[in-house]
Amino acid sequence: MSGSWTVGRYLITRLEQVGVRHVFGVPGDYVLGLMDEIVDSEIELVGTCNELNAGYAADAYGRVNGIGAACVTYAVGGFSILNAVAGAFAERVPVVVLCGGPNRSDRDQHRLLHHTLGDYGVQVDVFAHVTQRSVGLSSGEAAPDEIDDAITACVRHRRPVFIEVPADLVTEECRPPEPIDFDLLPPSDPDVLAEAVSEAAEMLGRAESCVVLGGVEVHRFGLGEQLEGLLDHLGWPMATALMGKSVIRETHPNYIGVYSGALSEEGVRRTVEEADAVLSIGAWMSDINLGIYTAQIDVGRLIHATADRVQIKRHYFDNVYLGDFIAGLRDALPDGSSRGPRIQPAASSLFESFEPVSAAEITIERFYQRINHFLDEHHVVLADAGDSFLCAGDLIMHEGVGFICQAFYCSIGFTIPGALGVGLADRSRRPVVFVGDGAFQMTAQELSTLIRFGVAPVIFLMNNRGYTVERVIHDGPYNDIQNWRYHELVRVFGGGFACEVRSEGDLEIALAGVRKHPDELSFIEVHLDPDDCSAALKRLGAALAKQRFS
Amino acid sequence: MSGSWTVGRYLITRLEQVGVRHVFGVPGDYVLGLMDEIVDSEIELVGTCNELNAGYAADAYGRVNGIGAACVTYAVGGFSILNAVAGAFAERVPVVVLCGGPNRSDRDQHRLLHHTLGDYGVQVDVFAHVTQRSVGLSSGEAAPDEIDDAITACVRHRRPVFIEVPADLVTEECRPPEPIDFDLLPPSDPDVLAEAVSEAAEMLGRAESCVVLGGVEVHRFGLGEQLEGLLDHLGWPMATALMGKSVIRETHPNYIGVYSGALSEEGVRRTVEEADAVLSIGAWMSDINLGIYTAQIDVGRLIHATADRVQIKRHYFDNVYLGDFIAGLRDALPDGSSRGPRIQPAASSLFESFEPVSAAEITIERFYQRINHFLDEHHVVLADAGDSFLCAGDLIMHEGVGFICQAFYCSIGFTIPGALGVGLADRSRRPVVFVGDGAFQMTAQELSTLIRFGVAPVIFLMNNRGYTVERVIHDGPYNDIQNWRYHELVRVFGGGFACEVRSEGDLEIALAGVRKHPDELSFIEVHLDPDDCSAALKRLGAALAKQRFS
Repeated sequence: MSGSWTVGRYLITRLEQVGVRHVFGVPGDYVLGLMDEIVDSEIELVGTCNELNAGYAADAYGRVNGIGAACVTYAVGGFSILNAVAGAFAERVPVVVLCGGPNRSDRDQHRLLHHTLGDYGVQVDVFAHVTQRSVGLSSGEAAPDEIDDAITACVRHRRPVFIEVPADLVTEECRPPEPIDFDLLPPSDPDVLAEAVSEAAEMLGRAESCVVLGGVEVHRFGLGEQLEGLLDHLGWPMATALMGKSVIRETHPNYIGVYSGALSEEGVRRTVEEADAVLSIGAWMSDINLGIYTAQIDVGRLIHATADRVQIKRHYFDNVYLGDFIAGLRDALPDGSSRGPRIQPAASSLFESFEPVSAAEITIERFYQRINHFLDEHHVVLADAGDSFLCAGDLIMHEGVGFICQAFYCSIGFTIPGALGVGLADRSRRPVVFVGDGAFQMTAQELSTLIRFGVAPVIFLMNNRGYTVERVIHDGPYNDIQNWRYHELVRVFGGGFACEVRSEGDLEIALAGVRKHPDELSFIEVHLDPDDCSAALKRLGAALAKQRFS
Repeated sequence: MSGSWTVGRYLITRLEQVGVRHVFGVPGDYVLGLMDEIVDSEIELVGTCNELNAGYAADAYGRVNGIGAACVTYAVGGFSILNAVAGAFAERVPVVVLCGGPNRSDRDQHRLLHHTLGDYGVQVDVFAHVTQRSVGLSSGEAAPDEIDDAITACVRHRRPVFIEVPADLVTEECRPPEPIDFDLLPPSDPDVLAEAVSEAAEMLGRAESCVVLGGVEVHRFGLGEQLEGLLDHLGWPMATALMGKSVIRETHPNYIGVYSGALSEEGVRRTVEEADAVLSIGAWMSDINLGIYTAQIDVGRLIHATADRVQIKRHYFDNVYLGDFIAGLRDALPDGSSRGPRIQPAASSLFESFEPVSAAEITIERFYQRINHFLDEHHVVLADAGDSFLCAGDLIMHEGVGFICQAFYCSIGFTIPGALGVGLADRSRRPVVFVGDGAFQMTAQELSTLIRFGVAPVIFLMNNRGYTVERVIHDGPYNDIQNWRYHELVRVFGGGFACEVRSEGDLEIALAGVRKHPDELSFIEVHLDPDDCSAALKRLGAALAKQRFS
């Protein structure tokens, strides 16, 4: 690879350098030249059925791989992928969105080109609202800096960026790429860091009982091992918020479960709420993540560290990075300082036996109890927004990156294309999807892309005939949906293993079938009573309804 | 309906007043209160599988009904529908988009609510780029004016508008609605109008041969009858641009066919390009609409009237409205002034007989020849972007509003949810859809909503194994897609008539089946050779490829 460089080759080379191995997208004439560059590279181009689904796949891929990418055409593609990009922005997932655009000469002549809206800059303006950086490449001379600036912003801030490439610019010559450290964070301010660590250590040292609350940013900034080291050092119990689920392996003896206010399992709730000090590491204090503000954590007992800021009680320390703060605490606190209540590890639920009653109708509660014994370290769970992620919160994840959900942005339909991203990001692990029927209908066609690319997820379609979450919040005819023969879709889209479950006996047969088809997409349609939902959902619904209509 | 009014009731009442009878949407907790208002009104709420599809349905509904509406939840719904709204903006379709939003009190407290992105105003800002008006309702006192301003802008400009309604504002009291004329256009400037009409009439009066080119704005501003009156008065031949197809009934003896530059049928092309004067009424000079700038209309022979401006040769008259200009020309020009070549009516193709050869493999050319004899005045054709709309351009439409396509914005996948909108807008007519496999995969799930609401379109799925248009422009592996057993989807989604066609004999059997099932969705999967496409598409592809990669 020597000689002259082009803007297209430069851009794709940079993607390779930051670890992108797959790009999800849909072709269109403005972007075919750029797609040729991808086809000619080490990166695999993964065609999805539509652009929104490409965005969801790239997001989920980014959660596992560290960074994701999508490639779509002008306007009809860009505007269609927007919601997925907004989700990645809200949940801090680094995704590079490449988009074709009209030739520069056509722009200058203000031609009425297809897919355009009069103002050719409209896409870049729109994406500025939901990305860390939104840029239209301007020339062969400027493009390398524009590209490097955008990709650096993506990696450093763990947020999506948008790069629009005029079709005629792809083949234009540019300078070769120079070495660059994309992930170079500025150091924490040493004095602020020292003061924050000192005050936190003093507060934690005085407390009779401490608990750690782990959150999603531990995963985004790759601090799982560091946090596990701190936990081993201190011996305190640790819970996670729902979005932070699985930031450390959940078989860790100090891990006690998901904390989400009044929705939590009682033992977890009391351990967190009754501790003298709560050390929150990378958690977001958002509504659903913390049980719709039913969380009872007294700010006077709280140390709340996020990406680049530490809050202790009611004051803030800026320019303190999460990793530096964890390292500082580890040095400042004595080891073995286990205090507070005896720890009841979450993983102990794995020792409760499950005896199926063949003829018994399947219920949500019994279903997830059974699944807890089915999952192993080769699985990655994706739980769609709704009862699926509330129930799946109680499942035990064996590995660090075992659980993926959108518990803040909550865009339903994320998990089917998400399984495509996860499956391609790590071929050694099998995605396991829990998705309701309403969510599934949003993005159902992406089953076909899973089959096409040989990804073999296990999909549990929880058919309870409608938008169950909405029913619980506030019911009306709008919560009904058309019932499908869901499991038959597998055959329509090209094959795999599919079956239906109505009883506990059916579920045993289905799980045996899943194990017999390790290399094929498995699709289990679970028929549930429309009124059956988790106890947590009932509590959530009551809390949401009160907020919305109060 | 007396006593106190609420913002929700006011808004829905205004929708009823401008002629909305169906609202397409997907529920979400921020919008359930507003949906209750719809459920309690005369308007039917039509739940779609996802928001993009709700937007396409509302757009197509608006094209037939005169105005359409959609209702979605905050962010995840709003951003998902954006592309459909951008399409309606580009193609001047009036659509009112209603969207729920967080309570005003939560905004003031800067809470981290689900679906939010930090800045609560982000949706209104994003939609400002693709709508005539984008507004977040602010209070019970201000809402009536804010609503009236937005709906008036929608109706007058024939463009979409976006109205965000905080959840807690729906039930807040407001003043009752006052009488309003939403569609009141300001008059043309009488002096400018007189000068434009006089110069145009003089130019047309001097010409040896004249031709009228009808365009989409004739339909949007409801000027079809007026244009037909002008045509009857003058006796000149009339062609339409692709987007303007069917702005008058195509069985009119003066209608000669679709003009799209080098893509046109030769007789149509010559009639237009060789006329001494071309009177363009409401046509858009966009790329695909006019054959990728292969149109050869000398601007020195052109009178080009659009919504509010007339161009004669190289100068412009502003503040002249299309309807006033047509009326002015009718008064200024003598009747019966038929000049130029003898007219070959497009409808004469209906007299060419079609004899099926049972065993012959079906080809695109023969397929559309046969369909021309199948269509009647009870049909409305929807042709998806791609070879479908190029081929369907040559079909003869019997009624004024018989043909719907997105020939400017060209968002593929529009027609399946579009058929839902068309079918509900006019229950007396049967939508007939032509859609390629790539386009179909984008929005396939909306078949289920057609079935659910008892809409009975005839859908021709043209299966040629990939993105044929892109193949013609520039081929690569990205143009391949997964093959489905498309016709089996009908059973999965709840029933209807479905079959496959490989030969001309199969097609006869299929059409007989369609006629036998007038009240059910009919789905015909037509298997085509992947290399079979229309001659027009081959010419289009060559022209596009030259532009894009030159």
